[in-house]
Amino acid sequence: SKYAYVRNFELPDPLLPGTFLIFRLDGHSFHRFSTEHQFTKPNDVQALMLMDHAARDVMEEYKDIVLAFGESDEYSFLLRKSTSLYNRRESKICSTLTSYFTSCYVFHWREYFPDVPLLYPPSFDGRIVVYPSSREIRDYFSWRQADTHINNLYNTIFWALVQQGGKTTTDAHAALRGTVSSQKHEMLFKSFGVNYNEIDARFRKGSILVRDIEDEPTPPELPEPTPASSTAGNQSHSEPTSAAETSQKSLKQKKNKAQTKAKTKINLLHCDIIKDEFWDARPHLLE
Amino acid sequence: SKYAYVRNFELPDPLLPGTFLIFRLDGHSFHRFSTEHQFTKPNDVQALMLMDHAARDVMEEYKDIVLAFGESDEYSFLLRKSTSLYNRRESKICSTLTSYFTSCYVFHWREYFPDVPLLYPPSFDGRIVVYPSSREIRDYFSWRQADTHINNLYNTIFWALVQQGGKTTTDAHAALRGTVSSQKHEMLFKSFGVNYNEIDARFRKGSILVRDIEDEPTPPELPEPTPASSTAGNQSHSEPTSAAETSQKSLKQKKNKAQTKAKTKINLLHCDIIKDEFWDARPHLLE
Amino acid sequence: SKYAYVRNFELPDPLLPGTFLIFRLDGHSFHRFSTEHQFTKPNDVQALMLMDHAARDVMEEYKDIVLAFGESDEYSFLLRKSTSLYNRRESKICSTLTSYFTSCYVFHWREYFPDVPLLYPPSFDGRIVVYPSSREIRDYFSWRQADTHINNLYNTIFWALVQQGGKTTTDAHAALRGTVSSQKHEMLFKSFGVNYNEIDARFRKGSILVRDIEDEPTPPELPEPTPASSTAGNQSHSEPTSAAETSQKSLKQKKNKAQTKAKTKINLLHCDIIKDEFWDARPHLLE
Amino acid sequence: SKYAYVRNFELPDPLLPGTFLIFRLDGHSFHRFSTEHQFTKPNDVQALMLMDHAARDVMEEYKDIVLAFGESDEYSFLLRKSTSLYNRRESKICSTLTSYFTSCYVFHWREYFPDVPLLYPPSFDGRIVVYPSSREIRDYFSWRQADTHINNLYNTIFWALVQQGGKTTTDAHAALRGTVSSQKHEMLFKSFGVNYNEIDARFRKGSILVRDIEDEPTPPELPEPTPASSTAGNQSHSEPTSAAETSQKSLKQKKNKAQTKAKTKINLLHCDIIKDEFWDARPHLLE
Ligand SMILES: Nc1nc2c(ncn2[C@H]2C[C@H](O)[C@@H](COP(=O)(O)OP(=O)(O)OP(=O)(O)O)O2)c(=O)[nH]1
Ligand SMILES: Nc1nc2c(ncn2[C@H]2C[C@H](O)[C@@H](COP(=O)(O)OP(=O)(O)OP(=O)(O)O)O2)c(=O)[nH]1
Ligand SMILES: Nc1nc2c(ncn2[C@H]2C[C@H](O)[C@@H](COP(=O)(O)OP(=O)(O)OP(=O)(O)O)O2)c(=O)[nH]1
Ligand SMILES: Nc1nc2c(ncn2[C@H]2C[C@H](O)[C@@H](COP(=O)(O)OP(=O)(O)OP(=O)(O)O)O2)c(=O)[nH]1
Ligand SMILES: O=P(O)(O)OP(=O)(O)OP(=O)(O)O
Ligand SMILES: O=P(O)(O)OP(=O)(O)OP(=O)(O)O
Ligand SMILES: O=P(O)(O)OP(=O)(O)OP(=O)(O)O
Ligand SMILES: O=P(O)(O)OP(=O)(O)OP(=O)(O)O
Ligand SMILES: [Mg+2]
Ligand SMILES: [Mg+2]
Ligand SMILES: [Mg+2]
Ligand SMILES: [Mg+2]
Ligand SMILES: [Mg+2]
Ligand SMILES: [Mg+2]
Ligand SMILES: [Mg+2]
Ligand SMILES: [Mg+2]
Ligand SMILES: [Mg+2]
Ligand SMILES: [Mg+2]
Ligand SMILES: [Mg+2]
Ligand SMILES: [Mg+2]
Repeated sequence: SKYAYVRNFELPDPLLPGTFLIFRLDGHSFHRFSTEHQFTKPNDVQALMLMDHAARDVMEEYKDIVLAFGESDEYSFLLRKSTSLYNRRESKICSTLTSYFTSCYVFHWREYFPDVPLLYPPSFDGRIVVYPSSREIRDYFSWRQADTHINNLYNTIFWALVQQGGKTTTDAHAALRGTVSSQKHEMLFKSFGVNYNEIDARFRKGSILVRDIEDEPTPPELPEPTPASSTAGNQSHSEPTSAAETSQKSLKQKKNKAQTKAKTKINLLHCDIIKDEFWDARPHLLE
Repeated sequence: SKYAYVRNFELPDPLLPGTFLIFRLDGHSFHRFSTEHQFTKPNDVQALMLMDHAARDVMEEYKDIVLAFGESDEYSFLLRKSTSLYNRRESKICSTLTSYFTSCYVFHWREYFPDVPLLYPPSFDGRIVVYPSSREIRDYFSWRQADTHINNLYNTIFWALVQQGGKTTTDAHAALRGTVSSQKHEMLFKSFGVNYNEIDARFRKGSILVRDIEDEPTPPELPEPTPASSTAGNQSHSEPTSAAETSQKSLKQKKNKAQTKAKTKINLLHCDIIKDEFWDARPHLLE
Repeated sequence: SKYAYVRNFELPDPLLPGTFLIFRLDGHSFHRFSTEHQFTKPNDVQALMLMDHAARDVMEEYKDIVLAFGESDEYSFLLRKSTSLYNRRESKICSTLTSYFTSCYVFHWREYFPDVPLLYPPSFDGRIVVYPSSREIRDYFSWRQADTHINNLYNTIFWALVQQGGKTTTDAHAALRGTVSSQKHEMLFKSFGVNYNEIDARFRKGSILVRDIEDEPTPPELPEPTPASSTAGNQSHSEPTSAAETSQKSLKQKKNKAQTKAKTKINLLHCDIIKDEFWDARPHLLE
Repeated sequence: SKYAYVRNFELPDPLLPGTFLIFRLDGHSFHRFSTEHQFTKPNDVQALMLMDHAARDVMEEYKDIVLAFGESDEYSFLLRKSTSLYNRRESKICSTLTSYFTSCYVFHWREYFPDVPLLYPPSFDGRIVVYPSSREIRDYFSWRQADTHINNLYNTIFWALVQQGGKTTTDAHAALRGTVSSQKHEMLFKSFGVNYNEIDARFRKGSILVRDIEDEPTPPELPEPTPASSTAGNQSHSEPTSAAETSQKSLKQKKNKAQTKAKTKINLLHCDIIKDEFWDARPHLLE
């Protein structure tokens, strides 16, 4: 129609090829949301498990996500640097992943909060950050896990002072002002008999969802264990740029399927991801 | 921490000031979603009303949206050109609005489909398009409504041929190939006794949600009818860029409140938005 | 070749359609350049005329530039909002215009400074700013001309104090601190007998280069007065996006040529461009 | 002034940190320029040396450029991945480098073409391409050098057929259609007695300008050999983002100066840069 020219105002937004993409989302006004839905303080294990569930759903749907890290009301996802998801269009990737995570969060709410009805629809913001090398990806995840540690240590002793110590929140903040890590550990132990390192690792380390390669090779004669619908879904997410690429790609995919298509499994961990061990065991994450 | 440098890779993405913003979202793979949830063909009034509900929720939450138009699995929203929502950051606006709409869609599902449980979490993609002038905004909405008309006329006669006429879908497509608008009207009337213009306006015109200014001025002595929480929410969405701007703005806001703060109401219409009448009656939409 | 994939890293950078483009350039380190080439203080008429010459050359070459404003070591150019110069690719437009201006500046140097050899190659930075409406364009040029006025008034009295008044530069700054416009006019008149308004308009108002439409219509039977080479050059700058557009465009161009192609002329003025008069006489500038 | 708000329309354009930047420029309409200035065909050694001179000037001025490659009317420059030139602002870098190169080209014209006056001002377009890793940088330069080889082999035999063989250009093209590399070598040798590998390496390999580290360490007691003005110029190009960074940086710079500041020298080569040897000898280029 004569109005279709308005489409020309949609500008292209491709992300730089050959780079790692981090997609991070964060709950919108979850200070209020956690209060109104009476989340346990400082950590609500059900709320965190719901986040983990939604994140896992996202990874099941988007196979180019190889790793995710969650804490509090946020989750970060790493897309392989070779991903061609939605032709690497920024808005498309960012909006769709945010939407799907949100949808899963609401969809699964009742499984984690059977007795707390959702009072209003929660939402999340999302963003894509582009990183050129594996060094920055390592540091990105270290940044988030270090943040988890700092926040959790503070919040744990803070709420102990308030809930068990009977302090006002103002007094609790005052008591913690200027204390270093070791002093917080000590306060926690001396005043409340709590050994910080024995607290639930989910709270101390956050949640790691990692797409691990299964050991046993896929026997070529057996049908693929992934259901047809999900394979179809996956393919629809990666749009090749040209017919030439398409055919080249399908050939490669067929070849891969026949020979090497490794079975993968998404594992949930609450381990250290700052040190080398986690990464050394999974070189494919940064390839 | 020594890892915080990774934040520097988050690049600014401000949208050009002084321009109209259109935010459009569209259901992801709703061909499959509508099939699996047995949407009535060609139009499922419950599905469309759910879309309208979610869109209205978005407008209630984001006061800078003055108009929205919905059809099929998509909705477009117009943000005033002076909006400073999230400092006009593209990803923040786009991801948050997409997320909130999605959340509302899932949240209200049961009200519209009490007997159809959600089989899996639906999702939407979102995008922002920037338009410099009111001419393009008029044409944008004309583009979407003309699209609604063309699709609906086609789909109406197509499904009549299939459902009532007993044709296969292949035959129905063949029967329609090359027909112009007037011929389709005629086929519909002659073969099925249906006067196209008497079909539900929601299907023919799509859904218009417009923030209209209420006639009666707000009596200054009465408290604002908007609940405090929602006002707070609204303010938190517009972040002023500087302290200077802030104070200037608060002054202006106070002044506005006292004198002129017009009461607005979101109305749902299914009328023509291509001709001038709709717009002439609402000059504030394009200011 | 197998290396050609590196081209895929060149990302598209189209500027929003339907918007006015301002291209501004500014001399790189012209504080040093003006000193080393002994520019007259505060204004060197030869240096300014060289800037005007280079700017006029740019306008002769790029027909979509309808207006330019110069002061000091900078020049701003307005491109019509319908321009399709280099398909509105930002880097291409910005780098090419900066390059051509620079080239003209060096090329014509000897005509303006026959006795001052260029000691080293001067350079300029360039940038494109996108404006949605004519209001901002008016304000943009007002911003530059107001800047010219403020700087020139200050510099005129400052250098009078130093050169004729025998003050040190420190003392001259001190003498001017806190003075308002009227006081500066008075100091200039009382101490040096200079009526500011009689100073060269080039210094007070800056340089305006405007593409004016000539009155007499082009007689259709005569050949176009523009040389073939320059027409060719111009066409090569606007690349249509598609074959469809091309043919539509050529038709339109032919039609224009036969009927209405107005003769234009680039005029140099040193007049007010803040008030309406200049613009009211030239409605085509903002169309 | 009340007009200054127009500055807010200048949007930020930082390039991704931690990435290699390639700046490439290319002569605007050099088909015409080379014809009108009677460049020798297929290669004009004076024209190429002028390009090399301008490129060297750019590298002298912008110390973060470590490598450049030139052929025909184009030059590519590699900026170190840690560069903070103009805070990595894309337009600023791209326009300024293009401008300076252009200026040097015109400035030095007479040295290379003493008998050919410049008929009109030449210009160049410029662009920045961002690359995440050293692999792509290697491939980028291989891409340009392979292009040089292919073009030069073709042009050499083509112009031999025309100039010495008396063929029309149409016939020459026809004679070459479908020939592979080895056949071209043979034609050149058999028909014209020319051994392609003995042709000037500048034509076969292009021009490489590389910033090499000099062997002897700078004796700390001697003053830096770089002239003060150029050092100042260099510093002014890198703008630190914050005060904190500044002080950290100056400390580091001082430390570097005292201890390790290596003397560098820009060398012009016409060697292979596709194989490893060139790069293995200069690991600093890709750091
Ligand atoms: N009680 C409780 N609160 C939580 C839990 N996880 C997150 N929250 C709350 C605590 C924080 O107020 C909030 C997360 O902080 P944010 O910085 O993301 O703030 P918020 O979401 O309010 O604002 P935003 O829209 O992200 O700027 O969510 C939890 O497990 N238990
Ligand atoms: N039966 C039925 N289907 C509907 C209704 N509204 C939308 N749909 C379906 C019809 C189309 O297949 C689909 C919308 O078309 P789209 O072009 O958005 O395709 P789809 O969402 O499948 O793919 P996409 O992910 O947007 O590229 O949704 C409805 O009211 N009734
Ligand atoms: N004496 C003299 N100096 C002039 C004239 N026009 C411009 N200049 C000098 C005065 C200023 O120092 C300089 C222009 O100011 P800018 O703010 O552009 O500074 P500059 O070019 O040094 O630095 P930049 O690279 O633009 O950041 O050029 C003139 O007509 N006479
Ligand atoms: N005779 C001669 N011509 C040369 C030499 N170096 C470059 N040229 C000419 C040959 C080509 O026509 C032209 C470079 O090709 P380009 O693809 O850059 O085309 P051109 O600059 O005409 O158009 P453009 O504005 O870059 O799209 O410059 C030379 O050494 N001798
Ligand atoms: O923790 P983040 O990244 O969400 O940081 P923020 O301070 O909330 O800022 P933003 O407005 O980018 O969400
Ligand atoms: O109707 P749209 O804008 O969604 O058009 P599309 O053909 O679906 O394309 P896109 O990949 O931009 O959603
Ligand atoms: O006057 P401008 O726009 O050049 O302003 P500036 O302060 O020189 O800043 P920039 O680094 O953008 O040239
Ligand atoms: O060789 P390039 O990169 O200049 O390629 P081009 O075909 O001239 O295209 P462009 O319009 O990007 O200069
Ligand atoms: Mg945030
Ligand atoms: Mg949050
Ligand atoms: Mg958070
Ligand atoms: Mg779509
Ligand atoms: Mg859809
Ligand atoms: Mg749709
Ligand atoms: Mg500047
Ligand atoms: Mg300057
Ligand atoms: Mg200046
Ligand atoms: Mg080119
Ligand atoms: Mg060229
Ligand atoms: Mg070229």
